[in-house]
Amino acid sequence: MKKMFCSEYRLGRHFMGRLMHGQDLIGSIENFCKAASIQMAAFSVIGAVSSATIGSYDQKQQVYVTYKAEEPLEIVSCTGNVSLKDQKPFVHAHIVLGDELGKTMSGHLFSESIIYAGEINLQELIGTPMEREYDDITGLMLWKITS
Amino acid sequence: MKKMFCSEYRLGRHFMGRLMHGQDLIGSIENFCKAASIQMAAFSVIGAVSSATIGSYDQKQQVYVTYKAEEPLEIVSCTGNVSLKDQKPFVHAHIVLGDELGKTMSGHLFSESIIYAGEINLQELIGTPMEREYDDITGLMLWKITS
Amino acid sequence: MKKMFCSEYRLGRHFMGRLMHGQDLIGSIENFCKAASIQMAAFSVIGAVSSATIGSYDQKQQVYVTYKAEEPLEIVSCTGNVSLKDQKPFVHAHIVLGDELGKTMSGHLFSESIIYAGEINLQELIGTPMEREYDDITGLMLWKITS
Repeated sequence: MKKMFCSEYRLGRHFMGRLMHGQDLIGSIENFCKAASIQMAAFSVIGAVSSATIGSYDQKQQVYVTYKAEEPLEIVSCTGNVSLKDQKPFVHAHIVLGDELGKTMSGHLFSESIIYAGEINLQELIGTPMEREYDDITGLMLWKITS
Repeated sequence: MKKMFCSEYRLGRHFMGRLMHGQDLIGSIENFCKAASIQMAAFSVIGAVSSATIGSYDQKQQVYVTYKAEEPLEIVSCTGNVSLKDQKPFVHAHIVLGDELGKTMSGHLFSESIIYAGEINLQELIGTPMEREYDDITGLMLWKITS
Repeated sequence: MKKMFCSEYRLGRHFMGRLMHGQDLIGSIENFCKAASIQMAAFSVIGAVSSATIGSYDQKQQVYVTYKAEEPLEIVSCTGNVSLKDQKPFVHAHIVLGDELGKTMSGHLFSESIIYAGEINLQELIGTPMEREYDDITGLMLWKITS
């Protein structure tokens, strides 16, 4: 069995914050990380969006299929991490959204998801940051495996 | 772009616990926080409920629309935080519930959600606790922005 | 009101890792914990599976009803913990899965859920590990309540 590849990190700064109404969800987090010099982190968000762009990965065609929801939705779960892509802090997050009837849609979070209200819990991680590189098998930008 | 408002916290006590059968989910967490003098925390729960009350925020009317599910459901995700509202520890959590066919409903967690079984992971955060106040734009009780 | 039963832990090692393509999701995490001598932890995963086995607990009959999804799915949320069962590290996790249309299914995660790609965030917890034992009321293997 191929073992999972893990790196150990020290816990850095811990932030709780309020995401701003009308702003882009991913952009807000990436800008915060750039301003605070955060290269590696784990976070979660709850709140609501006024519109969202989500996607899922077509494992056969190896492309993302995206879907734009032009409606108010609850962010019922949003789990993500920050690591480096092209030497810059990059957010990878998955999101679960609920509509007014409790109906749920979910997927990979893309930009052009606009915050109505949001609360973030972000733990900075200190150590050699993970870097994304192209993976031949999946066609995804995955964390580089180092010795 | 309006930046997100973040406060930095030190990590306090970390708790893992078992939620008690037949008790209210939000009430259990708030009572624990009061007893343990916790003013700020981040937590997640997995388990099951025997019934649940969830809601979503109608962004146009600025009111919560609630829905009561009188059936056994898995807590497949429950992410939340503890902060102060009227000087008391207050739980804000969003929940994803799955029924016996794997069908999913989700939203803002309300009281009158009754635990069948549950496991909580709670990280206390030390620092000036966030306080909720009415926000004119969204009509929600959001974290007060301080300088 | 019956209070929740909580134990306090110190924060141990923090790991971020890449789950390996083609491997079993639960097996990968349990093997990592055994190899790293982790007895207690909290974790979350995002990524995708090529197939999954999920279930929900029938609270009346007190048995798990399982469902096997033989299709590619996004892991939009996966929250879990590691504690001891029969003196060995045991993973308890709940998962939310999204298909190519954004449709969501969710439940208790079982083995025979195969990783397409995955990223784990795992916090080791140091202290007396929780141990699972049979609970008469629910019929589940819950954390033993100690004084």
